[in-house]
Amino acid sequence: MLEKLKETVWRANMRLHAEGLAPLTWGNASAFDGETRLVVIKPSGVAYDAMSPGDMVVLDLEGHVVEGECRPSSDTPTHLEFYRSFKGVFGAVHTHSVEATAWAQACREIPCYGTTHADCFHGPVPVTRFLTEAEVAEAYELNTGKVIVERFRELDPLAQPGVLVAGHGPFTWGADVMKAVDNAVSLEQIARMARLTERMRGDSAEPLPAYVSEKHYQRKHGPNAYYGQKG
Amino acid sequence: MLEKLKETVWRANMRLHAEGLAPLTWGNASAFDGETRLVVIKPSGVAYDAMSPGDMVVLDLEGHVVEGECRPSSDTPTHLEFYRSFKGVFGAVHTHSVEATAWAQACREIPCYGTTHADCFHGPVPVTRFLTEAEVAEAYELNTGKVIVERFRELDPLAQPGVLVAGHGPFTWGADVMKAVDNAVSLEQIARMARLTERMRGDSAEPLPAYVSEKHYQRKHGPNAYYGQKG
Amino acid sequence: MLEKLKETVWRANMRLHAEGLAPLTWGNASAFDGETRLVVIKPSGVAYDAMSPGDMVVLDLEGHVVEGECRPSSDTPTHLEFYRSFKGVFGAVHTHSVEATAWAQACREIPCYGTTHADCFHGPVPVTRFLTEAEVAEAYELNTGKVIVERFRELDPLAQPGVLVAGHGPFTWGADVMKAVDNAVSLEQIARMARLTERMRGDSAEPLPAYVSEKHYQRKHGPNAYYGQKG
Amino acid sequence: MLEKLKETVWRANMRLHAEGLAPLTWGNASAFDGETRLVVIKPSGVAYDAMSPGDMVVLDLEGHVVEGECRPSSDTPTHLEFYRSFKGVFGAVHTHSVEATAWAQACREIPCYGTTHADCFHGPVPVTRFLTEAEVAEAYELNTGKVIVERFRELDPLAQPGVLVAGHGPFTWGADVMKAVDNAVSLEQIARMARLTERMRGDSAEPLPAYVSEKHYQRKHGPNAYYGQKG
Repeated sequence: MLEKLKETVWRANMRLHAEGLAPLTWGNASAFDGETRLVVIKPSGVAYDAMSPGDMVVLDLEGHVVEGECRPSSDTPTHLEFYRSFKGVFGAVHTHSVEATAWAQACREIPCYGTTHADCFHGPVPVTRFLTEAEVAEAYELNTGKVIVERFRELDPLAQPGVLVAGHGPFTWGADVMKAVDNAVSLEQIARMARLTERMRGDSAEPLPAYVSEKHYQRKHGPNAYYGQKG
Repeated sequence: MLEKLKETVWRANMRLHAEGLAPLTWGNASAFDGETRLVVIKPSGVAYDAMSPGDMVVLDLEGHVVEGECRPSSDTPTHLEFYRSFKGVFGAVHTHSVEATAWAQACREIPCYGTTHADCFHGPVPVTRFLTEAEVAEAYELNTGKVIVERFRELDPLAQPGVLVAGHGPFTWGADVMKAVDNAVSLEQIARMARLTERMRGDSAEPLPAYVSEKHYQRKHGPNAYYGQKG
Repeated sequence: MLEKLKETVWRANMRLHAEGLAPLTWGNASAFDGETRLVVIKPSGVAYDAMSPGDMVVLDLEGHVVEGECRPSSDTPTHLEFYRSFKGVFGAVHTHSVEATAWAQACREIPCYGTTHADCFHGPVPVTRFLTEAEVAEAYELNTGKVIVERFRELDPLAQPGVLVAGHGPFTWGADVMKAVDNAVSLEQIARMARLTERMRGDSAEPLPAYVSEKHYQRKHGPNAYYGQKG
Repeated sequence: MLEKLKETVWRANMRLHAEGLAPLTWGNASAFDGETRLVVIKPSGVAYDAMSPGDMVVLDLEGHVVEGECRPSSDTPTHLEFYRSFKGVFGAVHTHSVEATAWAQACREIPCYGTTHADCFHGPVPVTRFLTEAEVAEAYELNTGKVIVERFRELDPLAQPGVLVAGHGPFTWGADVMKAVDNAVSLEQIARMARLTERMRGDSAEPLPAYVSEKHYQRKHGPNAYYGQKG
């Protein structure tokens, strides 16, 4: 079932590895099929070069495995929480990419210092609070998803398609799984640029003027967007 | 029309990606044909590995599409401004390469700290002012070109073949599109070297003595240049 | 003899090179065969692309060459000390990977700043003391092993599967040689993330709360681990 | 003539590019043939992928071209000065590799912070003085060689097989051209490690104890060296 989506999710996971965002077996990508309301996700802890599309695991939104020989990614409950809570999100990615993870470890949101950032994120890249001891002890991965959703209570997940989980690392998402991978690539670049900008300016680093960041975001994502090809 | 130039522009764009200067669909290269006074440029938002020479778009200097199925790069009006204003410039490149972009985001020109820089840029790499709110609101990409041209009012664009747009990123150019790509590669290296030099020296970093930088620039680009092969 | 293990050790060494952890002839990986109690290790100073499985050297635990035309790695006595002293360790790796080596040169242990670290190391990455002049003068490589074992007197080598030798670089190990390579890859990532975290936080950088790091370590390595596939 | 050496020099130059030490047409490698007392060097400003062994240029020690269609590297007079002055040196390399160049631009010698350094350089990596205005004006590349030789008046070029030219970049050499390339690779790694060590330790960074660095240098290069294979 969902053979085409499995192939796509497999390719998305392979891209994470090829882009250098996920060494070893780190990182995972999933997709949500709007019609069947099923999720396709990478198996847990399988080496990228030993993985084929048929190894992808299919689950329902409550986490019951519907098809697949392998255990799903241990981060599956986090992905499911996105699909249950974020309208319009049909793909999600988790990595430990170095630069984004360093911001997550520093518990700092990434300010918008330039148009590269504004092209992708409408506002800073948010950081969550730490999970409490109780949230870690029980249903840790589900609670990771809940803490992310809590952070987005007043934010639009499609306009800020990613987050840094404090002490952990980045999650990104999008209208499909390939967009979620694109956002993971963008986030890593943005994170590195922001770090270097601060190093060069110190405390005097200032966010991009709002009228510039707004322009860049809208020309790519707004109602009158003119970046890219039509349809 | 201009099939050979389309092939060259396509290759130039592919090099941007292969050199690591343009992840995803970021970055664009164009060429100006002196005879027909037409410009060939990358289509907007098309993935590098899905792009072929036939997808390049041909425009006149006023921006009317003369040939091509695709929308041209959203940065086309910036490129056109170079060809209208910079004599001797027949190729141009825009990237969001990380190190050069970090300097642009820090709104700092790059001082000439060594001969690598002097081999390519005759003086610091200039940074523009920010565009005003009005310049952003209307004809943003054209005004980006105008702000660059304004910055070069007293500079020679062939001697300083690139610029950092404040809060945005680098543009480079040259006597042909492959030279513009070369300059984008050089600029990224120069930007990284300059950052590391400042980190190691702090406030005591000092530009290269002028007699050395002059020598290096002239041995490669001056009337008696002796770098490279004849003719 | 041990042809299969030689092939595995050869592949492990090739991975060190391919992962960018070992330029030139730097780095070496070995395996310990529990049944024969023999060790298979890379030959000394042979270029990676000139090396084949048959070049691997077989030794007993006292360092006598049992099979092989080549001299074994000069670091062999260090590897042997691991197999004599660390129960459950059947693979070991030494590299001069840049980020981990920088921490070793700075004589600093790597604090656990995030879950990437906690997934792999149960506690900070330890650093040894410097060897004394006498320890360097005689049996240097054996004493390097002894100083590492000394550092682990109250630590569990399988829970903290690597160390930084002061002024030198990292050694990692594991239940087999491929796990030792995985740990070398992880350590390099962890080292880089930790450096960037400190740069972004300065003196205010704080280790991950213990209840989070404990959770991550246990979900991957504890008695009820649920990361990866069964059996 | 010297077809085999041309092939080797060509391969050495290709390695500079493949190792990431020489983007575009930057960097050059040469070899000195002890029997004929002729030098084989890369042509000036030719793209690496457009270059074949037959393009290598053959010169005598006074710089007269003996064979070859192309102009030799503009840095040829520097290389010739090494072969005239440094006994036992039969290969030389010049690059603008980023980390080593940053130290050169900062006009700082690289202290020996660890065994990676000690394995390759017997002491710090020296930095030259700046050339004077007169030395730059006339016979610049020859004078670059002379300033390097001056810096080595009391140093052994085979024990410290490289130098940083102030404001310019690294030159390395060795007993043959492939060793000179190896030393260029090592120097770039050493330069990066030293920078990161200083970042992590600040003013408290201290050189490796002499008894350790001496041990490492001698075990690889001393009269009783035991690293690598015999003969």
